Amino acid sequence: MAGETIITVVGNMVDDPELRFTPSGAAVAKFRIASTPRVMDRETNQWKDGEALFLSCVIWRQAAENVAETLTRGTRVIVQGRLKQRSYETREGEKRTVYELDVEEVGPSLKYATAKIQKMSRGSGGGGGGFGASGGNSGGGGGFANDDPWASAAPAGGSSSGGQGSGSSSFSDEPPF
Amino acid sequence: MAGETIITVVGNMVDDPELRFTPSGAAVAKFRIASTPRVMDRETNQWKDGEALFLSCVIWRQAAENVAETLTRGTRVIVQGRLKQRSYETREGEKRTVYELDVEEVGPSLKYATAKIQKMSRGSGGGGGGFGASGGNSGGGGGFANDDPWASAAPAGGSSSGGQGSGSSSFSDEPPF
Amino acid sequence: MAGETIITVVGNMVDDPELRFTPSGAAVAKFRIASTPRVMDRETNQWKDGEALFLSCVIWRQAAENVAETLTRGTRVIVQGRLKQRSYETREGEKRTVYELDVEEVGPSLKYATAKIQKMSRGSGGGGGGFGASGGNSGGGGGFANDDPWASAAPAGGSSSGGQGSGSSSFSDEPPF
Amino acid sequence: MAGETIITVVGNMVDDPELRFTPSGAAVAKFRIASTPRVMDRETNQWKDGEALFLSCVIWRQAAENVAETLTRGTRVIVQGRLKQRSYETREGEKRTVYELDVEEVGPSLKYATAKIQKMSRGSGGGGGGFGASGGNSGGGGGFANDDPWASAAPAGGSSSGGQGSGSSSFSDEPPF
Repeated sequence: MAGETIITVVGNMVDDPELRFTPSGAAVAKFRIASTPRVMDRETNQWKDGEALFLSCVIWRQAAENVAETLTRGTRVIVQGRLKQRSYETREGEKRTVYELDVEEVGPSLKYATAKIQKMSRGSGGGGGGFGASGGNSGGGGGFANDDPWASAAPAGGSSSGGQGSGSSSFSDEPPF
Repeated sequence: MAGETIITVVGNMVDDPELRFTPSGAAVAKFRIASTPRVMDRETNQWKDGEALFLSCVIWRQAAENVAETLTRGTRVIVQGRLKQRSYETREGEKRTVYELDVEEVGPSLKYATAKIQKMSRGSGGGGGGFGASGGNSGGGGGFANDDPWASAAPAGGSSSGGQGSGSSSFSDEPPF
Repeated sequence: MAGETIITVVGNMVDDPELRFTPSGAAVAKFRIASTPRVMDRETNQWKDGEALFLSCVIWRQAAENVAETLTRGTRVIVQGRLKQRSYETREGEKRTVYELDVEEVGPSLKYATAKIQKMSRGSGGGGGGFGASGGNSGGGGGFANDDPWASAAPAGGSSSGGQGSGSSSFSDEPPF
Repeated sequence: MAGETIITVVGNMVDDPELRFTPSGAAVAKFRIASTPRVMDRETNQWKDGEALFLSCVIWRQAAENVAETLTRGTRVIVQGRLKQRSYETREGEKRTVYELDVEEVGPSLKYATAKIQKMSRGSGGGGGGFGASGGNSGGGGGFANDDPWASAAPAGGSSSGGQGSGSSSFSDEPPF
């Protein structure tokens, strides 16, 4: 892919990551991060927390499994990926847009922590590297609609866009995940 | 400010920028850009447009006036700024979140165009430069709630343009601007 | 290409850009920018200029011609590209390394200026967009060694790595361009 | 600080990090990373390694100790920081310039590895966050000249490790560190 908007965000895990598998067996993890800037309070002349930026993140394959095994709620992370936008319709037919980060690289920040690293043996088809090379990722991304592990988990009789929504009535207007 | 998420986006102006002034006289411009990645179509083996990323942008002061004078719908631009999130409630009480870019630097891309540049004389209090130095910007941003040029332009009797309002008539669920 | 280090720099043109053509007719422009951070002087409690970051930039094809026609010494610009490193040997056999920016997008900043934009008609083979799509750029970059417009400008009898170096004796240790 | 060039690099540790302490007791770690893009070989139609980008990195305080305890040669890391340039003179009076990354955040990539994270208790004066807030870092950086842990490690009778020095013996033309 080309002409993408690649960004890096430093923030804290809002929850534990959620790991699923597509019917074809590909791992995918989702997680949300909150990035809180520090602002100078001109009255007290001290730094304080500004308004947080929340961002949903998606990561595929081996890295998804590594994320699920490593990161937990609260962990400070560095995330790099493609900023994307996805549109969907609510049951009421309203159009909604969500932004999310298609993650290429993520890791725990060492600002306030140490880590014991365990290298995984790379399976076949692994490797590649970074933006554009990862044909697999693009495929994965593209397959999101057809091969959605969240969708596959939707209960029979459930509505469309929700995925996580369980009942029929309490369906929210929230982004599908 | 510190710990902000600074990103750079290359895209095209969706519309002409909209310029307003706060009651205190500060200029502020808003515009939207669409950044369209190119993806390889594996069937035709050719590049084609991917799904666009749309982003609302806000810029303050002299730069806002320069933007309004220079950029028009369709112009390809490079934009750098802080990615921010703003939450608001619809009249139905639903919470919505919009992302926007608090622009620090913007300019027309020279990829497919040339430009004749006209330097503006810097007024007093100008200068400063880039992230963190621009105390003025922060002030401006902070003043957004209290000193909203869009609100000031609301028709008499109408509700604020904010969306948090509970006006009666054609009030939409769209982000406040 | 993939896994590249894409960065955005805001700075001022150190000189007018230099435009050349490869033997095969491709335009390439070089220019240097200086990015000067603002630092808080804790004694005077005022902002002052910090140490500048200088970066050499290379841009190809139509965009190179646009740059040459638009930007001049002193212009404030926004530049996005791939950070690269090139190693070479001096006459004395010492290894030197230079960093440079393989520019993808560049434009004048509207912070202190306005601009009159003139859109160029895109030639055939143009278009494409952004990182990775620009097969032409990669080709251009790759051809730099074999198809170097600076080298081609070297006088007969001139030495090797310099390109710009004219005589035989006064050959400097400076990066080849 | 403001108007800095903040970049993110993904690469592999070239060596183990080197940890030192300033006379006043502040920890500082240095390390180098190599970021290797993947390029498409048009003859074989396969991805192969492109030319690596090497970058020297400096990190201060608690994070420096965490880096020294966590990262080793070969570890794949994500690094975010300010791109800076430092000039010095060799003993022969030649001017040299080195680029380095003043690191704000670094962590191991989870692309091919998992990690067990150990949170450190934050000492007093810690916290702060990210760019601009870290007055301590600036101070640290500024103190680099006067409070250089590398200098303090210089052998008796030897010149400073700086390179600007004009020592007599085994002094190299290499960047000061």
